[in-house]
Amino acid sequence: MRDVAVIGIGMTSFGELWRTPLRSLWAEAALAALDDAGVDSVDLITIGCMSSGLFTGQEHLASLLVDELGMAGVPAARVESACASGGLAVRAGFAEIAAGLADTVLVTGVEKMTDVDGADATYALGTAADAEWEGFHGITFPGLYAMLARVHMATYGTTREQLARVAVKNHANGLLNRHAQYHLKVGVEDVLQSTLVADPLRLLDCSPVTDGAAALVLTTVERAKELAGDRPVVRISGSGLATDTITLANRGALAELNAVTLAGKRAYAMAGRGPEDIHLAEVHDCFTIAEIMATEALGFFEPGQGGPAVERGWTAIGGKVPVNTSGGLKSKGHPVGATGVAQVVEIATQLWGAAGQRQVEGARIGLAQNMGGSGGSSVIHILEVV
Amino acid sequence: MRDVAVIGIGMTSFGELWRTPLRSLWAEAALAALDDAGVDSVDLITIGCMSSGLFTGQEHLASLLVDELGMAGVPAARVESACASGGLAVRAGFAEIAAGLADTVLVTGVEKMTDVDGADATYALGTAADAEWEGFHGITFPGLYAMLARVHMATYGTTREQLARVAVKNHANGLLNRHAQYHLKVGVEDVLQSTLVADPLRLLDCSPVTDGAAALVLTTVERAKELAGDRPVVRISGSGLATDTITLANRGALAELNAVTLAGKRAYAMAGRGPEDIHLAEVHDCFTIAEIMATEALGFFEPGQGGPAVERGWTAIGGKVPVNTSGGLKSKGHPVGATGVAQVVEIATQLWGAAGQRQVEGARIGLAQNMGGSGGSSVIHILEVV
Repeated sequence: MRDVAVIGIGMTSFGELWRTPLRSLWAEAALAALDDAGVDSVDLITIGCMSSGLFTGQEHLASLLVDELGMAGVPAARVESACASGGLAVRAGFAEIAAGLADTVLVTGVEKMTDVDGADATYALGTAADAEWEGFHGITFPGLYAMLARVHMATYGTTREQLARVAVKNHANGLLNRHAQYHLKVGVEDVLQSTLVADPLRLLDCSPVTDGAAALVLTTVERAKELAGDRPVVRISGSGLATDTITLANRGALAELNAVTLAGKRAYAMAGRGPEDIHLAEVHDCFTIAEIMATEALGFFEPGQGGPAVERGWTAIGGKVPVNTSGGLKSKGHPVGATGVAQVVEIATQLWGAAGQRQVEGARIGLAQNMGGSGGSSVIHILEVV
Repeated sequence: MRDVAVIGIGMTSFGELWRTPLRSLWAEAALAALDDAGVDSVDLITIGCMSSGLFTGQEHLASLLVDELGMAGVPAARVESACASGGLAVRAGFAEIAAGLADTVLVTGVEKMTDVDGADATYALGTAADAEWEGFHGITFPGLYAMLARVHMATYGTTREQLARVAVKNHANGLLNRHAQYHLKVGVEDVLQSTLVADPLRLLDCSPVTDGAAALVLTTVERAKELAGDRPVVRISGSGLATDTITLANRGALAELNAVTLAGKRAYAMAGRGPEDIHLAEVHDCFTIAEIMATEALGFFEPGQGGPAVERGWTAIGGKVPVNTSGGLKSKGHPVGATGVAQVVEIATQLWGAAGQRQVEGARIGLAQNMGGSGGSSVIHILEVV
């Protein structure tokens, strides 16, 4: 198996980009990554996208997007695992290079969620749950995560204020990221007084509906060393995938995220690392409770200690293990297919020491955790400076 | 790169299976393949599906389907490239084993196209074309392939009767396949007198709307030798992907399928084989013209000679290079995400010598060619007896 490195990154600003169609968003991020890497050809393009069919009436992105980039002919593949589609695109590119089937891969993620033809965003996102056993009965994602929050609060005593502190931290980080959808200082009281969406979750506990795209160029570590220039070479040392039951009703326990625990174990094992080695992480904070549960599932904190950890500032920049320095899904925005790729963009930026005001000092090992549905799938990557 | 073999196959009967939901179709094929392989655990499940979102209001099949199989936890990934989604699922499984990321993979394809919630089949299939430059203006797939047929006829003199002979041959083969949607003897006159759909294509030139699923178990050649028993070990010796412009309007030439030519070159190069080495092929005959163009793009016949070849019986069972012994999309049916996997099921069955009345004598090397949209993407695999 060949070692794989990140040599280029690109992303659009995230936001409600009414005037920009999916293909243009995608091309902006793709071209930025190719330019950043200094390469003008690739052997494969992978595309993470949850539901261009429902959002925009367009499937077959492999052909659409290579064409948009003027690269017709180049192999391309779209992958989907709901909101973990971006992480799966990273995995697909990683696997092809590791196998020796490709030397250089453009890994991308995109979602166009506003100003679209077809279904509304809530319906389209709801197709990440079990249509027959959850969706058709009226439950939507804020409701599913509200149930997880209730169980976590009842099991471990996690407090409403601890949830709010996730939003406060991530909005503070997002203020330092020019690509973030929101540049908005948020206090604990702002969260507690925002509109109730699904008890106990309020508007400021929820990630937004977002348009955006993100891209990476991956190649072998060998080639990366030739191209790196002044930048440290950052390789993907671990990659883990896992699933869980799609319905909450089928799970044995609801206070934990089994798919994250399992994918984490697989990624740690491949990298020969453990939670104690991780200097920073991007985790899938689609709702504030999800960040708390993810930091526990990844082993950063004991079960039930994710809430206290955020309260003590352990996950803030400068804390024990900074989480979501980019602003996370909460503040940076959540174009669902792009999110998993954008997480790796942030980790690579940090490991290159190029994160500016939000730089984590001495960061050499980082982790990106992407998740689909209410934890039905998860994709985790560990990156480290060679 | 590790060598990869097929050790199990399974598929549902294809047809209008009104009472069977997507997840049940899929599980039937998946369990059949696991049983055929004699394994009860896998490291990864790949799922080819074009548009479960538009057809059934369900995305996130990775989580839904592992759950249905009682295998929650196992890594899973859905891939999509319109009607080439099944071929892409084969490629994804092949890449993970080749890389050493997985030892045994369950490769699956599924589509539920009838009796569904949401959009009708013609709209959903239309999302494989460029929504903004083709779909929104009203063109559908029979129209796109009718234009390709017109150009082919004008360029090479391909005749209306040659198109009909593709349907006649494939329906004759389908009569010998118990999984086929149609068991129907069709004559040239039947095709020529069937309802006009998009001039020059008639109803019997078109593949149908179909429900169905297909599955394979892949593993290393090393493990396959241990498990094979009396069956010959069949390995995947070549895998090629390619794209073309999504719109017909952007192509330089319309009498050829560039994505097929390119993907074929890549697969032949990996296998160290050429068209003259292929004993039989499953090709993507979504319309009769597509089979003729594919046999030319794959190099079985010179450009313009695909029509005369079918007329001379060269692609029939017993001919120079039997094509679509399974009945093809035309007679076996075309559940779009399942098709690319079902093609490999047929090739493996033939190479094992287990194809019964439709057996191609002495078949040791076969090829499966899957295609998305109007040729915007193609995935090709070459299989051979070790």
